[in-house]
Order: sequence, then structure tokens, then C-alpha cells
Amino acid sequence: FEYDGPHMKTSVPGPLSLALQKQLGEIQNVQSLNFFCDYEESRGNYLVDVDGNRMLDVYTQIASIPIGYNHPALMNIMTNPRNLSSFVNRPALGMLPPRMFPEKLLDGLISVAPKGFKRVQTMACGSCANENAYKAIFIWYRTKQRGHSDPTSEETTSSVINLAPGCPDLSILSFMGGFHGRTLGCLSTTHTKAIQKLDVPAFDWPIAPFPKLRYPLAQYERENAQEEKRCLEEVEDLIVKWEKKGKPVAGIVIEPIQAEGGDNYASFDFFRKLRAIAKKHGSAFLVDEVQTGGGSTGLFWAHEHWRLDDPADIVSFSKKLLTGGFFYKDEFQPDKPMRIFNTWMGDPTRNMFLSEVLKVMRTENLLDQVNRTGHVMLNGLYDLQARYPHLLSKARGLGTFCAIDVKDEDTRNKLILKARNKGVVLGGCGTQSIRFRPALVFKEHHAQLFLSIFSDTLADM
Amino acid sequence: FEYDGPHMKTSVPGPLSLALQKQLGEIQNVQSLNFFCDYEESRGNYLVDVDGNRMLDVYTQIASIPIGYNHPALMNIMTNPRNLSSFVNRPALGMLPPRMFPEKLLDGLISVAPKGFKRVQTMACGSCANENAYKAIFIWYRTKQRGHSDPTSEETTSSVINLAPGCPDLSILSFMGGFHGRTLGCLSTTHTKAIQKLDVPAFDWPIAPFPKLRYPLAQYERENAQEEKRCLEEVEDLIVKWEKKGKPVAGIVIEPIQAEGGDNYASFDFFRKLRAIAKKHGSAFLVDEVQTGGGSTGLFWAHEHWRLDDPADIVSFSKKLLTGGFFYKDEFQPDKPMRIFNTWMGDPTRNMFLSEVLKVMRTENLLDQVNRTGHVMLNGLYDLQARYPHLLSKARGLGTFCAIDVKDEDTRNKLILKARNKGVVLGGCGTQSIRFRPALVFKEHHAQLFLSIFSDTLADM
Ligand code: FES
Repeated sequence: FEYDGPHMKTSVPGPLSLALQKQLGEIQNVQSLNFFCDYEESRGNYLVDVDGNRMLDVYTQIASIPIGYNHPALMNIMTNPRNLSSFVNRPALGMLPPRMFPEKLLDGLISVAPKGFKRVQTMACGSCANENAYKAIFIWYRTKQRGHSDPTSEETTSSVINLAPGCPDLSILSFMGGFHGRTLGCLSTTHTKAIQKLDVPAFDWPIAPFPKLRYPLAQYERENAQEEKRCLEEVEDLIVKWEKKGKPVAGIVIEPIQAEGGDNYASFDFFRKLRAIAKKHGSAFLVDEVQTGGGSTGLFWAHEHWRLDDPADIVSFSKKLLTGGFFYKDEFQPDKPMRIFNTWMGDPTRNMFLSEVLKVMRTENLLDQVNRTGHVMLNGLYDLQARYPHLLSKARGLGTFCAIDVKDEDTRNKLILKARNKGVVLGGCGTQSIRFRPALVFKEHHAQLFLSIFSDTLADM
Repeated sequence: FEYDGPHMKTSVPGPLSLALQKQLGEIQNVQSLNFFCDYEESRGNYLVDVDGNRMLDVYTQIASIPIGYNHPALMNIMTNPRNLSSFVNRPALGMLPPRMFPEKLLDGLISVAPKGFKRVQTMACGSCANENAYKAIFIWYRTKQRGHSDPTSEETTSSVINLAPGCPDLSILSFMGGFHGRTLGCLSTTHTKAIQKLDVPAFDWPIAPFPKLRYPLAQYERENAQEEKRCLEEVEDLIVKWEKKGKPVAGIVIEPIQAEGGDNYASFDFFRKLRAIAKKHGSAFLVDEVQTGGGSTGLFWAHEHWRLDDPADIVSFSKKLLTGGFFYKDEFQPDKPMRIFNTWMGDPTRNMFLSEVLKVMRTENLLDQVNRTGHVMLNGLYDLQARYPHLLSKARGLGTFCAIDVKDEDTRNKLILKARNKGVVLGGCGTQSIRFRPALVFKEHHAQLFLSIFSDTLADM
């Protein structure tokens, strides 16, 4: 089924990609465009472009392809005539769901619900997942404050015109380097690059420092523990400060690994303590697994590594889960209809695909695969950073969710382009990191192939 | 192809719907649920539920089904094996679009671009369409203020932590009764029902009154003109006031017909004057065609009825267009990549469907059909409100985009449920209106059938 290696015919983007880019440039901004793809010819871990270049994909559409391109199990869905009407007639899921919807939730999302969760709300992407998770948190917080769910008439009247008490001054606490999406609510909790935020109004919400760990971790245990302690103290200070400011922290949002922000890690202990702080101050604890969820860290959910005694309140997801959405505890379900609502509320065809993906993950033991491949990847990266200490540092990872730092942004960008011309698709994150985001079907031999090409690329630098 | 009329076997929701609702209720909030559908059995204007009830659909999944259920032209896309990989491999469109993407934009969205537009950005739904349209407006406004695009280092540094000058205090002016989505940015411009906004923090942005026209229009010409004048003056006052407050109005957002808010109309002249006011004060003019776009008003875009000399700056869409997104003038394209960006940036399979929908609209002259059917609908509604003046009033519409008021909310809701049990699916809007949102393939005889069932229902009240 799969190809046996990269095969390059032109430099990338090739002439056909460039011609199409010119055409598309008449219609929209194409500055972020890499190249045009031939998805029909792509297979498994190999992405084929329109110029016939075949590349090993270690980025997978910004970490959103779970089991590779054109997986036969997913193609099967498309060839079953009974499924086709689901694609043609997109329902308003919140009002008129298809017959199979509950079943597909049960053998899909609910079957992989993180410990402590029985409820899930689908949404169409990571941004609406988080936006609606924030809303569920605000509604929960105010209902708790009121002691009951019935608002006063002053609250209902003022809410329609954006004023308190109906639209209260509540806040979500986020972390420097965190990324939670780009719509205006999410963007107020996103703190990665200026270019993503510049010129856009934001809510005045508290931002805590995320631990800056020193590597190698084993060598800096004491300093890192100190750094995490400092950040947690700052979280508590901010909660108190914002409460005094009249903008109480209704919820705390955090990624298990700050992905866009540069694959920044904190210890599992840090997260457990953070969860306790949220509880202590009556703030909801929201774990954003949009990029980390779906198995690439070696567990289905990255936050399962923490072994929380007290589960999170909400866990949001998208990307590899194919549908957006969020798991939530009972008390985060609004008491009334239409509070968490929109036209589509997700897309049931994505739930159909997800059920198949999960079946493949189980029958092919893909979480084990991820752990084995991750081992090869990370050891290979350790080896490369030892051989190229002037270029590489801070190799890190969980499962195949790995990253490495390059000496500066410019060199990082060059390295990515050079690797691409040798047949490997990579993505950057943070200011100077490369993030590795292969599909779950990326095997040991793919990792070895990647490492060998990456090593050649480094030798050329 | 289509059925010849409604056919009811049980009351709605029937026993199977109720059983499924119970099952789904264990997983999520089901208070907004109407019934479960059998999309495979649905055809054209008829929606079939899981209990085998076949209903004439005059609501079409909240106005989002353009040419009816399971249209053969759309089913054909699904049976062409060359198309299937597009469904299975969802690309990160902003970086790695498929080969056909520019072509599908050209024979799709660009082929129906409103006068004055050559550029379009796809998004995945109406909310991200508007959120990103707002961002494009803020970026445009600040770039204009600076006189160039390069921010100061103070701006970039402050933007990451939500502070001015990087995150400026700019605003979007919206209207009472307007609806533009439910994510936090959009929600700050939505002012329909309290339940949609209660407990959710909002930006302090100006809200202008939308004209409350008196019906019949012909009888209240002078009063209505006066009312529109008052609203326009208020818009100018608010722009000045918010400028003084340090929160300049970067853009004005408005629907051609306030759809969720109760199918509220203003004269074409009102909109032309509003456009001029936006221009005069240097605010962008954004027309939200999420519910009105796609042909149901008898023109492809409802705002084409206005015959603007000076086109809008941005036009957003979703629903019947199948993909979300917005058309924009050249100067609203950000100068740098990644400012308007997210993982998926839409879904190219929706563009494939849209091209087919447009082909069907052309070959079957569906805009003419809408005008003919709309004529039957509106005359029928006039007739019914003359026969039931104690129940109905304010019949109004453009094309098949029609509505009528019922004497109170409670009666409206009962009427909708009773009509459903007679085989007609309807939706409410505002506090006491019924909105009619049939597909573009709703013909004169469907309108007559609907009117006759609706008349029976009224007789029963
Ligand atoms: S905001 Fe998620 S799909 Fe539009």
C-alpha cells in the first residue's frame, strides 16, 4: 500500500505548484502556502505534491492526519453507498441529528473519553471547541455564584447589550507561550507570536508564566523545580489579583505540551499542582488537547501522563480527532437549551471517520507503535544533537510528539526547506524549534529513514 | 425523484426519535433537539425522520440546504472515485491546498462574487468567517492609522500580552436584533436573545438601534423613513462617541435582513446611507450574508437589492454556500502571512459541492424559480393574515425568504409544533415570528402545499 521512500523530481515548490500559487494569489493571500498536493496519490506517511515529488510527512497537515493518507479503512467508508447521504446532507446537529449519531459518539469519542468524563459536545474545529468550552465555564461559574440558574431581569436585559451584570467581567487565565486558537476569545488566551495577535483587540485576562525548563532535565532538576514553583505562585497571585480587579478567574486553560509555542514541557507534578490550585480557587480547569490528543504522545490523551486523582473539568480536542469538541463534567452542561449552540455543531461524517480511526488504532495497536517509534525518534535526535552541538539542542518528546531546537530562527527555517528538498516535510514551532508530528502509522523504519535524511541535511549545513 | 407530499406515521418526535434522544441525553444536552432524521430517505424538499414521517421542509437545517436533500448532482460527486480522497484527507488549506483548489474557487465562490470583489478567503463556518472578517478589519484599520505596515517593537511586545498599543481598543459597531455568531468576538456583535449571551463576557462595543418598521409598509412610509433617519443619526453619534471614548469604530457589521432577530427589514435606502456613513467615518462596511446569501431572496446576495454604487468592504457567508468565508477588497488582505490563518481554513470538499450547486442553480434557473415561488408564498401569507388577523400579522419577504408574525411567542411555538405533526417543518425567529427558509428547489406547488397545510393548522388553533 505505501511507498518505499521519498522520491524527488523537482525542488519544492516545483513549477506546477508555483503556477497554481500564482493563480491562487489572485484570489487570496498565499504567503503561508508551501506547495500544492496531489492527495489522490498520497499514501500512508507519504505526501505527494502536484509536481510528482513524494515526501515522507513528519508534519501531517499541522498534526491533523491520524493514520496517514488514504488509509484503506477510511476509503471504505466512502465506498459504502449507505454512507454517502451523510456527506451530501449536512445536518443542524443540535436540532436534527442523523439516526447514527448517538452510536457514533459511543463507539467514537465516548469510547476514548479521558478518565472522569461521560459527556462530550462536538464542535467543528479547535477554535469553536475552546470558545464554547470558555462559555460553558462562564455559565458554570455564574450559575454557581447565583446559587441557582435563574437570572434576574436586570441580568437578562443587560446581557443583550454587552453590559454587566448579564455579561459579567470574568476571565480565563492562560500561559505565556500558550496557543488556544485565533478567534477573539481564544486569541485572548493565545500568547505565542506577535503576528498572530497584532492589531486585534483582546480581553484583559491574566497571563501566567509557563515554566522555562533547562535541558538536559536530569542535570537541572533543582533549578527546574524552583522555576515551576515560581510559576505556580504567580498563578495564585494572579487569581487573587484579578479577583480584586473585579474580573475573577472563572477558568484556567493550558496545553499539556505548549505546541505552537515551541513544544514547551512542564513536569507532570506541575500540572497536578496547577489542577489543585484551580480547585482551591473555584476556577475550572480546562486542558486543551487540540494538538496533543489522539495518541501521538503514547497515551491517547497527553494529560493522562499526569495521573490526576481529580480529573480536569473540561478537555477540548480537534485535529487528529477529525471533529472538534470538548468533554465536560456534568456540572458544565448548561441548564437551558441554545446556550452552547450553533448551526452545524460539528459534522457527523467526521464522527464516522473517527470511529474507523479508533478501530484501526486498536487492531493495529498503534499506541504501542507510537511508543516504539518514539523511542527510535528521540534516541536518534539525542544522537544528532550530540553530533551537531553547534546546531541542535534540547531534543525532547513524548511518544512521537518530539521536537528539537535549532541554533536560531533563520537556520531552523533553512533546515526545514533543505530537508523538504531531500524528501521530508517538517514544521517549525516557537522561535527556533522543529516539531515532529508524524501520523500514528509512522513506524520504526520511517523514523530511521527520517533520521538518516535529517542527518544528511545537517551535514550539508 | 421527489416524494409527492408529506406522509405522517406518528406524532413527532415519534417513539424511535424519543428513544435515541434518551440515549443521546446521557452524552450531551438535548434540549434543543427536534427529532432524529433519516437522511438517506430524505429527498428534495422532504425530510424523513427515523420513525418514517415524511415532512415538507420549510426550514432546511436552519437555512443551510441549498438544493434539497440528496440532490442527484451532489450524489454524483460522491460516486466519482476520483473525488473520494478529498473527503478522506482533510488538508491544512492555508499551507498545502489540493491541486483543484484554485479552480474550484474560480468556478465556485469567485463566479458568484458580489460586484466589486475579486478576492475570497474560505473559513469553516459562519462564526470563523465573521471572526476573521473582524480581524481583517482591525488589521486594515491599524495599518491605515500607522500609514505603513511595520509595527513598532512596543506594539509587537504588548500584543503578545493582550495590551495596547499592540492589542488596540478598537470596536465593531453592530445593531440591536443583529446576529453574527456565538464565538466571543461575534457574540459581542450579536443582540438577539438573552439566553445566547447571558453570563458570557463581551467587548464594550457600540450597538445602534435597527429600524423598527411599521406594517403595512405602504401605509407608514413617512413614519418608517423617520425611524430609519433616527437610527442612522444614532449610528453617527455612536461612532463619534466611541472615538472619544478611545475605542474607535473600525467597522460596521449588519445583515441585509436580521434573520435570527425576527426577519427585520430596513429599506434599501437605509443601507445605502449606512454604507456612506461608514465611508465618511473611515469604518469598514461588513455585510453578513450568512443566512441571506445563496439565492433565497431572489438575487444571489441579498445586499445586491440595494444597488450600492460603492460596494461593501467585506461580505461574509456560510450555510447555503456550504463553506464559510468572506469576500474582501484588496486593501483588507493582510500584508503578512499567518495573520488570518488556522489549521483547516475551510474544507475543500465543501467547495466541490458548491460548484455543483451553482451549476444546478444555473441550469435550472433557480433564481427565477425563487422569485416565482416567493410570489406564491408571500401572496399566500397575505391572504392568511387577512383571514386570521387575530393570529397573524406583518407577512413580509424577499423571494422565498419570508416571515410572518404570530400574536405571541407561545402561540407561535404551538403553531410550529402543530404544523410539524401535519407534515411541515418550520422554524421560529425573533420573539414571535415564523421564518420560512425553503431550499431553492421549492416550487410553486410546494408553496401551495405548504400554504394549504399551514391554513389547516391555523383553522385548528
Ligand atoms: S469556528 Fe470552528 S468551524 Fe468555524
